Amino acid sequence: MEDNVRARIAADIATAEGVRKADLVLKGGQVFNVFTQSWETADVAIRGSRIVGIGEYEGGREIDVHGKYVTPGFMDAHVHLESSMLAPRELAKILLLNGVTTVFADPHEIANVLGVSGIEFFLEETEDMPLSVYINVPSCVPATNLDTSGAILTASDMKAVRELNPRVRGLAEMMNYVGVVTGQLEVLDKLAAFQDGVIDGHAPGLTGRDLNAYIAAGITNDHECITVAEAKEKVARGMYVFLREGSAAHNLVDLLPVLQEVDNRRCCLCTDDRHVDDLIGQGSINYLLEIGVTQGYPAEQLLPLATLNTAECFGLRGVGAVAPGYTADLNVFDDLESFQPVHVLKDGYPVVYNGRLNWTSRPVRSQAVFTMNMPPLDPSAFRIPVEEGCRLRVIGLSQNQLVTKELHKAPSVLNGEAVSDTSRDILKMAVCERHHGTGNIGLGFVRGVQLKRGAIGTTVGHDSHNLTLVGTNDEDMAVAGNKLREIGGGLVIAADGEVKATLPLPIAGLLSDRAADVVNAQLKQLLFWVHELGVPDDFSPFMVLSFLSLPVIPELRLTDRGLVDVTRFSHVPLWVGEE
Amino acid sequence: MEDNVRARIAADIATAEGVRKADLVLKGGQVFNVFTQSWETADVAIRGSRIVGIGEYEGGREIDVHGKYVTPGFMDAHVHLESSMLAPRELAKILLLNGVTTVFADPHEIANVLGVSGIEFFLEETEDMPLSVYINVPSCVPATNLDTSGAILTASDMKAVRELNPRVRGLAEMMNYVGVVTGQLEVLDKLAAFQDGVIDGHAPGLTGRDLNAYIAAGITNDHECITVAEAKEKVARGMYVFLREGSAAHNLVDLLPVLQEVDNRRCCLCTDDRHVDDLIGQGSINYLLEIGVTQGYPAEQLLPLATLNTAECFGLRGVGAVAPGYTADLNVFDDLESFQPVHVLKDGYPVVYNGRLNWTSRPVRSQAVFTMNMPPLDPSAFRIPVEEGCRLRVIGLSQNQLVTKELHKAPSVLNGEAVSDTSRDILKMAVCERHHGTGNIGLGFVRGVQLKRGAIGTTVGHDSHNLTLVGTNDEDMAVAGNKLREIGGGLVIAADGEVKATLPLPIAGLLSDRAADVVNAQLKQLLFWVHELGVPDDFSPFMVLSFLSLPVIPELRLTDRGLVDVTRFSHVPLWVGEE
Repeated sequence: MEDNVRARIAADIATAEGVRKADLVLKGGQVFNVFTQSWETADVAIRGSRIVGIGEYEGGREIDVHGKYVTPGFMDAHVHLESSMLAPRELAKILLLNGVTTVFADPHEIANVLGVSGIEFFLEETEDMPLSVYINVPSCVPATNLDTSGAILTASDMKAVRELNPRVRGLAEMMNYVGVVTGQLEVLDKLAAFQDGVIDGHAPGLTGRDLNAYIAAGITNDHECITVAEAKEKVARGMYVFLREGSAAHNLVDLLPVLQEVDNRRCCLCTDDRHVDDLIGQGSINYLLEIGVTQGYPAEQLLPLATLNTAECFGLRGVGAVAPGYTADLNVFDDLESFQPVHVLKDGYPVVYNGRLNWTSRPVRSQAVFTMNMPPLDPSAFRIPVEEGCRLRVIGLSQNQLVTKELHKAPSVLNGEAVSDTSRDILKMAVCERHHGTGNIGLGFVRGVQLKRGAIGTTVGHDSHNLTLVGTNDEDMAVAGNKLREIGGGLVIAADGEVKATLPLPIAGLLSDRAADVVNAQLKQLLFWVHELGVPDDFSPFMVLSFLSLPVIPELRLTDRGLVDVTRFSHVPLWVGEE
Repeated sequence: MEDNVRARIAADIATAEGVRKADLVLKGGQVFNVFTQSWETADVAIRGSRIVGIGEYEGGREIDVHGKYVTPGFMDAHVHLESSMLAPRELAKILLLNGVTTVFADPHEIANVLGVSGIEFFLEETEDMPLSVYINVPSCVPATNLDTSGAILTASDMKAVRELNPRVRGLAEMMNYVGVVTGQLEVLDKLAAFQDGVIDGHAPGLTGRDLNAYIAAGITNDHECITVAEAKEKVARGMYVFLREGSAAHNLVDLLPVLQEVDNRRCCLCTDDRHVDDLIGQGSINYLLEIGVTQGYPAEQLLPLATLNTAECFGLRGVGAVAPGYTADLNVFDDLESFQPVHVLKDGYPVVYNGRLNWTSRPVRSQAVFTMNMPPLDPSAFRIPVEEGCRLRVIGLSQNQLVTKELHKAPSVLNGEAVSDTSRDILKMAVCERHHGTGNIGLGFVRGVQLKRGAIGTTVGHDSHNLTLVGTNDEDMAVAGNKLREIGGGLVIAADGEVKATLPLPIAGLLSDRAADVVNAQLKQLLFWVHELGVPDDFSPFMVLSFLSLPVIPELRLTDRGLVDVTRFSHVPLWVGEE
């Protein structure tokens, strides 16, 4: 082993000295120097997986990059891979085509479904591929005790996960910031187990003493800032602040001015959640750079946020720069506007060449992760007998926001049952437990989905990912739900007693086992039908649905165990007496 | 253990929240924020050894620092503790009084004398004291094979040292840069053993492909820059560059302009070698800051070089900033000019209060390190019979430089022997092996010492630290040498057959076991006598002597095995035939 290291060093030295030809040389490009935040015209010499020299070099293979720009490969400081609905190796292809060579992933969703074995699945699926996937251990599985998750991760489970693989780096976003600042025992256990690693934060709006306490507990980064003042305070208190631009959360433009207030070394870029259509249409971290440049920030100031800073945040040495001894993760661009790479090198290998992917992945091993453990659904399960003299608690959607309002509405009644009423846009909703065969079904109503016919369903439902259905009638809800039960989960739309379209997500009910373009086409088909059945074009009901069962965002949510008043953090009945 | 961690976190959180009183609060100071490189008026709350909050706090103890400046404790990125001639715990006192709370030490000198046991001695002596001493393992013991060192450290010894203590961080300055860039096997072994740690550099003037090769070998910092261009290239290639201001090497003023060329995050401050008189008279890292400010650089730009940057360079988390969760190593200053701290906190304890040291050290354990293993010296040992028709190779000192010239001079002859000649300032010199009792004595002549009577001697002689003597006559040389043999080494001056003054260095012949002020007084006494015996006031013969046996600096040197022509890297005879 050490002999190998010695031989490697000897060969690297000889190559750097020009005594030995490099394996690969990028010839004559404008090379970004992240340490001086400037460009220099130079060759980049690579031996094996490493850069060995910047200067004038000859290589066994040479790629002419005159007039082009060479940067380190990009890093995403915080991402939930599951948001793409793609299996890790499919997602990797898209990320590589966009110049992302390293991601720090929080497998929060699959862990809520499958626990440790979900994380093991991710580790296995991300092994031996030309994308570095580091895993932080999800900190909040389950997120609450108000619904039924697929699994529970205790502090001791989490410590065991830490030992699984050197790519497991630390603790993922500690969302329970209330638990931290109030010193909840179970939260302290988790923090204690990861004091010597990196602990990711999630602390929206935390300030002053609360922020001090949160950071004193060992939490060293945050991706939830929405204002410059918030970002500045967090940097000043020692955090790395991740400027986020996801599919749901758009914070980048608001946060970029923080670069004028603090040393940029403590800022990174992250996507957090990015859907397959946005990945294909816009890109990943490269899209964030494109936004930054469009906003007038110099590429030289932005590039460290996507490279070296993130490496430093996570204590990774030898990645994130174009310099001797660094891993040859490199992007080549024609211009610094679109940040669409011409070539991408991972570990010295041109995994993207002339814009085309140069890597064939083995197929995903999806058979191990079928998770739909629930009885078949009969329409009668969704019946809601009227309670005389009462009104319904209805979940009221807000335009462009995840928060909901608790509405009190008179029921529409048919044969003594409360039913969906498309004229008032009050639709029946059901959350069906799908992990343990309990048969739990929580029932309620939602206003704002705007479906005029049929029913839609999804097994993506934060954070416990039970089966969520919304429909204009019980029969189509059952058809939709049973289809998902049968195919292992996914997204579905049914009408007139039949399934109109599906996006199967057989991996834990969260991820497809198909190629990205197939998944994107399935999604488009699904959205076609959704709009065909009455939903306006500018509204994405599946994304909205996926958050309606998350009992931590105010005001009213529905879980498999019934309605939750999030402001009181407790279950409430569907019916409310006349005020 | 983990319960303790949990309890610690809980108490830190409660203190940060103000629910629990802090142990100590620095009230109302101007607090330096290294992340924003700016100042804010705030209290600093400390619990145990850690900072838990910045803001408004109350403490069981409070120190009023209104109108004063609070900074992180200073770090010296590279220092040979032995240069002070003080035992580590005595040196610690001086460093603390100057606001230095962390040093990265290379015990190169003591390792050349004592090998692993010298490093163990340093580790033991630096345990449990209010100064963090990190040790990097000396990379070049011995420095060459042209003389006789006290010990040899093989790559496998060095790996063993790494396991001794978590304070052993990496490999110390790889001086054999020729060995690196030519891929010498023994050098590769050492580099291979430390690839996963920090490897310190020493690469004066290295540039281009050589520099690429040196860095590709895993070497990540350098403290030998003398020009801005050199520093800039090294930063651009990925190195941390240490701006040095020692007692011998004065590079800071020349290098400071590099801060206008590169992001300052990759620059640190170091002293390398600092003598007891300079430490007492000028200070340590705080003196470097004083110079920087005097040169017109803002304190805000300089302070990161003495704090966070150094921590990042060595991969230390949680030190180098005034922020929650950081170790409470803090300095308090009245102004930002002299950088003479009023208070110094180490691990939350006011180790310096109102300018006075608040720590009593146990005595040094010096008995284990007596090292003078040599026979008594008889004046006859220094006799040099004349070789007819030949001239002497004489070491010619250069003004204010360590390089020497090879001079060829006619001998002054008395009774058939070549003798010292004060009229031409050509004095006899001897280097006596003192580690293994070999009796080796190398003889030669030196011009430039300017002694008119007597002899001087020292056991500080880079890098093998044999006994070096220079004298006007053999008898005084023997008196001087035998005195050092008897007292365990040190510095001495003898004249007229008797010892005039000594500075005993009983610890390995390198370090005193006395207090700093005593050592300084002994040094002054010694210099008084040196000048009394003819040496001009502006010349320090002991420092010069300590480098005359180092066979890596051109042009001519004397070791215990005879003269060395450094340009040819080989021994040469004392006598040279007529040209």
